[in-house]
Amino acid sequence: MRPLDPRTVRSLDAALASARELLIEQGLAGLTHSAVAARSGISRATLYRLWPEPTDLVRAAVTQHITLARPKPTGDLRADLLTGLTATHAMLHEPATEQGMRVMIERAAVDPRFAEVKQALYRSGTQAARTTLTAAVARGELPAELDLDLAVDQLHGPLFFRRLVANRTFDLDYVRAVLDSFLRAYSSKQSPEHGIS
Amino acid sequence: MRPLDPRTVRSLDAALASARELLIEQGLAGLTHSAVAARSGISRATLYRLWPEPTDLVRAAVTQHITLARPKPTGDLRADLLTGLTATHAMLHEPATEQGMRVMIERAAVDPRFAEVKQALYRSGTQAARTTLTAAVARGELPAELDLDLAVDQLHGPLFFRRLVANRTFDLDYVRAVLDSFLRAYSSKQSPEHGIS
Repeated sequence: MRPLDPRTVRSLDAALASARELLIEQGLAGLTHSAVAARSGISRATLYRLWPEPTDLVRAAVTQHITLARPKPTGDLRADLLTGLTATHAMLHEPATEQGMRVMIERAAVDPRFAEVKQALYRSGTQAARTTLTAAVARGELPAELDLDLAVDQLHGPLFFRRLVANRTFDLDYVRAVLDSFLRAYSSKQSPEHGIS
Repeated sequence: MRPLDPRTVRSLDAALASARELLIEQGLAGLTHSAVAARSGISRATLYRLWPEPTDLVRAAVTQHITLARPKPTGDLRADLLTGLTATHAMLHEPATEQGMRVMIERAAVDPRFAEVKQALYRSGTQAARTTLTAAVARGELPAELDLDLAVDQLHGPLFFRRLVANRTFDLDYVRAVLDSFLRAYSSKQSPEHGIS
């Protein structure tokens, strides 16, 4: 692929910076091609060429800032899960990605284009945890009958709930408390009435 | 308080039914006074009198359908938590309240009026669990050092994550699995390295 013209790169960066600012300040309602053009000085024609739909603007503003955890697994269950959840923590506290998640949660239910973007982010965002959990089951460190989807929800759900529903920030101590509670639930002796169903 | 004129009650019901339909079909963008007027046949003047702001429309459309769990606690920890989480399950699967939650998650970050409504719903929606957990700590069934906010997140977070982020529905078996895993984590013997911090 030919390297991009430096002027194009500068335009793109300026447009994305403006798009992120608008998303953070005003949410989806404020993220229009006209508003990005007015703030960044990039022409609307250029913006429409780069990102034809409002969905494309949101996706571009959000994904550029997502640093997906693709670390090499160390084989240490707790350490590997913590690496993945640390990336989730960062995503929920970086204003553009946080607000992008909020927008997608609202729009995904009524607009298939947003649903598609959100589904892709959900899949890539939880992939690290899935890989780590599957490897731990294979090593016998987690029960063979582990419900992988439930486990993913238990690890990520509290973080999303606290940031997006309770509207509170949190630190890595909180992430570790969620993780250690999860490990406790699955490493403890199980009494029959509380077995995994 | 004087009972409302029956015609006013009918107007109100018709307007709220239209507001819920618009919210479900189009999300917040479609829930305007004009659209509710066009669909319900109620005049815009009446709508503005009843609900001056778009926030008021959303709040009215959503809260009318929320059946908050205010059951008399039985003193059975698992049964009482399950009652509260069953109400959360219903809220996440009733289209108007589900979409209302999505709207508030998006708007709360950029509009203080929505933040206020969401905060009130969050508080009342988690109150049953807080009361139950506090009573169980007092009875010695849960550790005295239980982090109440963390526990609330662990019980509700997976449900919200699965419905609003993974965009999947779920049944009460899933709710019971989340609950039993939670009880397992806190009823097990705690090893020092995984203590509650």
